[in-house]
Amino acid sequence: MNIKPVAAFEPPYYTVVFTSVRADAPEGYDETAQRMDELVQEVPGFLGQESARTPGGLGITIGYFRDAESIAAWKRNMEHRTAQGRGRAEWYDSYSVHVAKVERSYGFVRD
Amino acid sequence: MNIKPVAAFEPPYYTVVFTSVRADAPEGYDETAQRMDELVQEVPGFLGQESARTPGGLGITIGYFRDAESIAAWKRNMEHRTAQGRGRAEWYDSYSVHVAKVERSYGFVRD
Repeated sequence: MNIKPVAAFEPPYYTVVFTSVRADAPEGYDETAQRMDELVQEVPGFLGQESARTPGGLGITIGYFRDAESIAAWKRNMEHRTAQGRGRAEWYDSYSVHVAKVERSYGFVRD
Repeated sequence: MNIKPVAAFEPPYYTVVFTSVRADAPEGYDETAQRMDELVQEVPGFLGQESARTPGGLGITIGYFRDAESIAAWKRNMEHRTAQGRGRAEWYDSYSVHVAKVERSYGFVRD
């Protein structure tokens, strides 16, 4: 298989867990999500991101960042703030955000 | 919508991010995954868990635990260890594990 999970980096680094429930394909969502996926890659200290969604509508996005400052920079981004506001106003029924410092990490790749 | 993401708890607590790529429905996987879902709920300090998978085969599971000791207890569980061994031997092409202490959390629920 060609796809791989984002690798386990050398701690410390940060992970931002964003879990959400939203309506199916609401207006403007896909374009904004795609723009955010591009924009976050410009943030210094951004390490990677991965997302998945259940058929029932629960979405999980994990972002990986070098340090707290890189998360703060992403949080300050005005285009991101506008998207977040629209998310609360229009798209999401509920979400949770967990900002966490990675203390231990490991990975496995089949030979 | 009735489904909700696991709530943002009061920090500190821990999140274990498990991302993996595996073949579609390999033998024995579903039964074991379901058994692990039940078993982890008996671990003192287990707070919750949620999973999603992309059509491409990337799976994300997030576990939430009260403290490092509750994660250690789950790691020591013999049935869990056996399942992990089988995962490496048979099911997974690759995986990453990130064990992280939550420093900040928040949530949103539409009125």
